Amino acid sequence: MMHHLAEMASRVRRAVRTLPQHMDAGEELYIGADGSPTLQIDKVAEDVILGYVNEEHLKWNILSEEAGLIDNSGDRTLVIDPIDGTYNAVMGVPFYSVSLALGTNRLSDIEYGLVQNIVTGDTYQAQRGKGAFMNGSRIRCRKYSAAEGVFLVYMGRYATSEDFQVAQRSRRTRSFGCSSLELALVAQGRADAYYLQTSQQEKSIRVVDIAAAALVLREAGGGLCHMDGRDLDMPFDLRTRHNFLAYGDKSLKEVLL
Amino acid sequence: MMHHLAEMASRVRRAVRTLPQHMDAGEELYIGADGSPTLQIDKVAEDVILGYVNEEHLKWNILSEEAGLIDNSGDRTLVIDPIDGTYNAVMGVPFYSVSLALGTNRLSDIEYGLVQNIVTGDTYQAQRGKGAFMNGSRIRCRKYSAAEGVFLVYMGRYATSEDFQVAQRSRRTRSFGCSSLELALVAQGRADAYYLQTSQQEKSIRVVDIAAAALVLREAGGGLCHMDGRDLDMPFDLRTRHNFLAYGDKSLKEVLL
Repeated sequence: MMHHLAEMASRVRRAVRTLPQHMDAGEELYIGADGSPTLQIDKVAEDVILGYVNEEHLKWNILSEEAGLIDNSGDRTLVIDPIDGTYNAVMGVPFYSVSLALGTNRLSDIEYGLVQNIVTGDTYQAQRGKGAFMNGSRIRCRKYSAAEGVFLVYMGRYATSEDFQVAQRSRRTRSFGCSSLELALVAQGRADAYYLQTSQQEKSIRVVDIAAAALVLREAGGGLCHMDGRDLDMPFDLRTRHNFLAYGDKSLKEVLL
Repeated sequence: MMHHLAEMASRVRRAVRTLPQHMDAGEELYIGADGSPTLQIDKVAEDVILGYVNEEHLKWNILSEEAGLIDNSGDRTLVIDPIDGTYNAVMGVPFYSVSLALGTNRLSDIEYGLVQNIVTGDTYQAQRGKGAFMNGSRIRCRKYSAAEGVFLVYMGRYATSEDFQVAQRSRRTRSFGCSSLELALVAQGRADAYYLQTSQQEKSIRVVDIAAAALVLREAGGGLCHMDGRDLDMPFDLRTRHNFLAYGDKSLKEVLL
């Protein structure tokens, strides 16, 4: 299974890198299944993935940020964010990814996940129960030390005072605008937490955004939870959205919630 | 003059990219002239620049984040941040730069500035009065539109409620942790403002951090100012630190100050 995900990612990367210009790639085309504008770069990437599934006659349903749910009467579902961090791509900031996960019904039953930085090619992958890897090497979350804490925090129009309080509690805070790669940094032990608490439910995270990275993070020893501490789970649809904390070291649940 | 800056940047890029591993590059070596820990990657980059100045018998003084002021009895001073965004480099996030500027006594008299993203090679440069360029193409700031605003805001332990309020006023907010490249995004018209308001004077910006990028931004039509609206100027030393706003469109002074 993983070789299919790897091949899809590599084709997306090739297709996106040959787009004429970053800014041209930002032209809005139409409104996606989730109600947000679909940009040309997202469309190109999604078409590559849908094309591959067709070409290989894979009997998988597909849940995509752009196309919604495509029911191929399969018993597995491919959950994709063709481009996570579209606006970084549009700005020319080399921090955006393709995110691919294969599961059945919900976040907690995902078996395979792969996230690839489209510019650098850095690839994070995990199979359930088999550990997490970056570019073929095993990765693990790190222990949290307050003196060296690095938190990745959602910021912007729908940020809340909780986000700001979390941001102020770390030695270093970043807001990179690409949740899949931000979770991968936590999985890799280079950051300690990712925190997203929006003021409006419809701006919270969807399963397509984090499906692959959540498996990578859990297989690296970390976790994701609701703001009340319960493990995060989400069905495969585009309606469900949640605020959440992703952590490398579970002691951060006490510190941040 | 610019060809010297370009050659130094290209040598720094080569040297840093051949370092064995990002994380190894984060090993702390000693305390720099500004009191902050100097990391191996900073030291490697600084040595390359100092070596070049020597080799070419350039009669330039040098002000560096790491080495402090090196007085070569020159009538010009090279103001450098060998690596801006060191912690991104340590994390493996491809958003860090080398920053090189040539002037006499202060920010406002800088004649040449060059900022290069070390991973992608994207290069921003400006000569006073001659416009700003990215990879050889003219760049200009964009007009501010509230509906599409992108603000880059300092976050973390020393952030203030002002930072948070600014962060909430844009459509998209990022905190990338590399001020020179963040100013370059404003110069390029891909972001609208960079805002840094710390609660402690000693955590504000130094001239070495923004010397090159400030010229690029001003030559692209933007500006930098103190929080009371006066144009930002700073002498060539490591003691002076200021909070500031960098903007593409000067209407943002009314909006944000």
